[in-house]
Amino acid sequence: MSKTLIPATGAWYPRMDPGQRQFFTMSPGRAFALEGGGTLSPITLAYETWGTLNSDVSNAVLVCHAWTGDSHVVGPAGRGHISGGWWEGMVGPGQAIDTETQFVVCVNVLGGCQGSTGPASGHPDDGRPYGSRFPVITIRDMVRTQATLANSLGIKKWAAVIGGSMGGMQVLEWAVMFPERVGAAIAIATCAQASAQQIALGAVGRRSIRLDPKWRGGDYYEAEDGDGPHDGLTVARELAQIMFRSDDLFNDRFGRQLGDRQEGFGLWQRFEIERYLDYHGDKLSRRFDANSYLLIGKAMDLHDVARGRGTLAQALGRIQAPLLAIGVSSDVLYPTYQQQQIVNPLVGRIPAQYVEINSPHGHDGFLIEIDRVAGVVGNFLRDLPATSSTKGLAS
Amino acid sequence: MSKTLIPATGAWYPRMDPGQRQFFTMSPGRAFALEGGGTLSPITLAYETWGTLNSDVSNAVLVCHAWTGDSHVVGPAGRGHISGGWWEGMVGPGQAIDTETQFVVCVNVLGGCQGSTGPASGHPDDGRPYGSRFPVITIRDMVRTQATLANSLGIKKWAAVIGGSMGGMQVLEWAVMFPERVGAAIAIATCAQASAQQIALGAVGRRSIRLDPKWRGGDYYEAEDGDGPHDGLTVARELAQIMFRSDDLFNDRFGRQLGDRQEGFGLWQRFEIERYLDYHGDKLSRRFDANSYLLIGKAMDLHDVARGRGTLAQALGRIQAPLLAIGVSSDVLYPTYQQQQIVNPLVGRIPAQYVEINSPHGHDGFLIEIDRVAGVVGNFLRDLPATSSTKGLAS
Repeated sequence: MSKTLIPATGAWYPRMDPGQRQFFTMSPGRAFALEGGGTLSPITLAYETWGTLNSDVSNAVLVCHAWTGDSHVVGPAGRGHISGGWWEGMVGPGQAIDTETQFVVCVNVLGGCQGSTGPASGHPDDGRPYGSRFPVITIRDMVRTQATLANSLGIKKWAAVIGGSMGGMQVLEWAVMFPERVGAAIAIATCAQASAQQIALGAVGRRSIRLDPKWRGGDYYEAEDGDGPHDGLTVARELAQIMFRSDDLFNDRFGRQLGDRQEGFGLWQRFEIERYLDYHGDKLSRRFDANSYLLIGKAMDLHDVARGRGTLAQALGRIQAPLLAIGVSSDVLYPTYQQQQIVNPLVGRIPAQYVEINSPHGHDGFLIEIDRVAGVVGNFLRDLPATSSTKGLAS
Repeated sequence: MSKTLIPATGAWYPRMDPGQRQFFTMSPGRAFALEGGGTLSPITLAYETWGTLNSDVSNAVLVCHAWTGDSHVVGPAGRGHISGGWWEGMVGPGQAIDTETQFVVCVNVLGGCQGSTGPASGHPDDGRPYGSRFPVITIRDMVRTQATLANSLGIKKWAAVIGGSMGGMQVLEWAVMFPERVGAAIAIATCAQASAQQIALGAVGRRSIRLDPKWRGGDYYEAEDGDGPHDGLTVARELAQIMFRSDDLFNDRFGRQLGDRQEGFGLWQRFEIERYLDYHGDKLSRRFDANSYLLIGKAMDLHDVARGRGTLAQALGRIQAPLLAIGVSSDVLYPTYQQQQIVNPLVGRIPAQYVEINSPHGHDGFLIEIDRVAGVVGNFLRDLPATSSTKGLAS
């Protein structure tokens, strides 16, 4: 693998072809202590970059992905990417996050299944998949591993950190945990603390996976029939898919249309909405590891920027970066009051604003209403005060 | 079993001790054709009555139960009743539905598991449980069997038919299918047609049960280990329980309180909201048959008063009875627009009104906000024009 010198740091790192996945292994041999009590070593992170890091290392933007996302923000499937970019239209030449002026990084989260160390990785003791041995991870663990990668890239401060849903949780933890390393924070369709209802929905999804006998307590990778808990993961994803969209949207798109035609009525005869759910559930279960789904879902339930940091206002009070929170009007999973909860304690102390996208697309609006979200993000980035940390962001 | 003569009809029927479950078997040997294409014979319905039928048979009120309800509207557990009454405070002496002046009937629905013919009943061919052989049923089937029972009791016209959730679906089918037999219709927290989102949530619950290997395709009653799909039913119920309540309520009641205390974080360590869900899921799975849950859930998804009757307005246009629809402001499962959809096409043609209960209790508000719901129902019944069909209702 060819290598490139980062001018500012003098460090060599693998040459970054746009959209080419790279791997970073954290100091091997040194155990990484997790917030939940376990340790992991070694930890490898898969990441991708777009654009060029400038000479004073002031144009780096971190994009944080959601639950079943990965490092492949934009670009086609293939070359190690199981699916096409999940945020096309947001990142690229001339886009809101402009790869002609910015150096964009996205890291597959710790615990994931698209290149970073996760439950399907080999355990150092025996080389066999971790499975049930993989420890619980938190959003803070994800962010701390990303900070180690940033160090290795010579990035002391991100010009901006941006993400939606679980990506937004990482944004908040970055801004709270490393306030001096974040030039601007953009948290979309997310929350400062998972609510009881969010935990409840996450828990039911996890219980669906556990119901599947092929989950085998998490140790399904070496099963003789080679089969994992696809059915359980499918059901878990179907529930999530309902909450990702909205009642209005489903009424408009599917109504009471029958999917499966047959004589009379059958218990498993499907309405069109069920075929839609089955399609999305099956699609996810073919590309995503069930144990990663469980672990990352648990990390979201554990998400609470206030844990060990006093009140929510006190925790958010650590943030120094200008902050933009975006909500989608029809989001039932991360209702807009949650984004307002992030902004309200900050207003008057730091530049903080809440913008609502009026859309029927529900939580997934942050992926679907790309032009409008990108417009809001672009404006926010352009309006940032031109400090050394945001130089090069104005377009 | 002692018998009593119904004065108006001259028919003998089993003496009705209040809260004593009775059984009615529809004309044995004659197959009952179901809307979905199957047939059933024999069909037995379990029902209970309270109060006394008056001499001109004009004071009979039908209460229709919801998904996991049964005929036991009020009264303690015991004597064949697996749980206490599900609508205490609504029915009784001096209550909104006043058993001192009204004769109240509640029937366990066809397909249920509390006395009426359902999938756990013996198949006439071999006496073994129907299991997977039980046909799909609809709300219309439930209502048509209730009409047969009404005939046998000599009740040509109900003074009122009332129910919440699936009970309200039955109310609407009664009023649309038998307009001349309904003196007043009270439909609470229900809909004229199941929406795509309702179908989606129902479908995910059913898939959870199907995931449980102990479901055995529906034929678990004679399993060697004697065990049914309790885990699957538990998960299905947990999902329903989330939708029965509200985000606000869960935030207030549980927030992010931990349920299971342990060193560090565990994947299956529960927040308090999860313990709550597990409690309710387990409780239901101990008292309810999974196949009945599947079938009745499917009946709700199939609920559409417009099926085969033109537009929704045309179908609802068949209703002649004064109609009251009640919604709960925080209901996310049967949002209030659905109750308004029932009333809107009727206004100006027949006495029809929508009343909203402002409550954080969500869909279950129709069971929990009993004083307020009973107040609205009592007022509606008192204000009915005193025709022969409603005589004796004014208190």
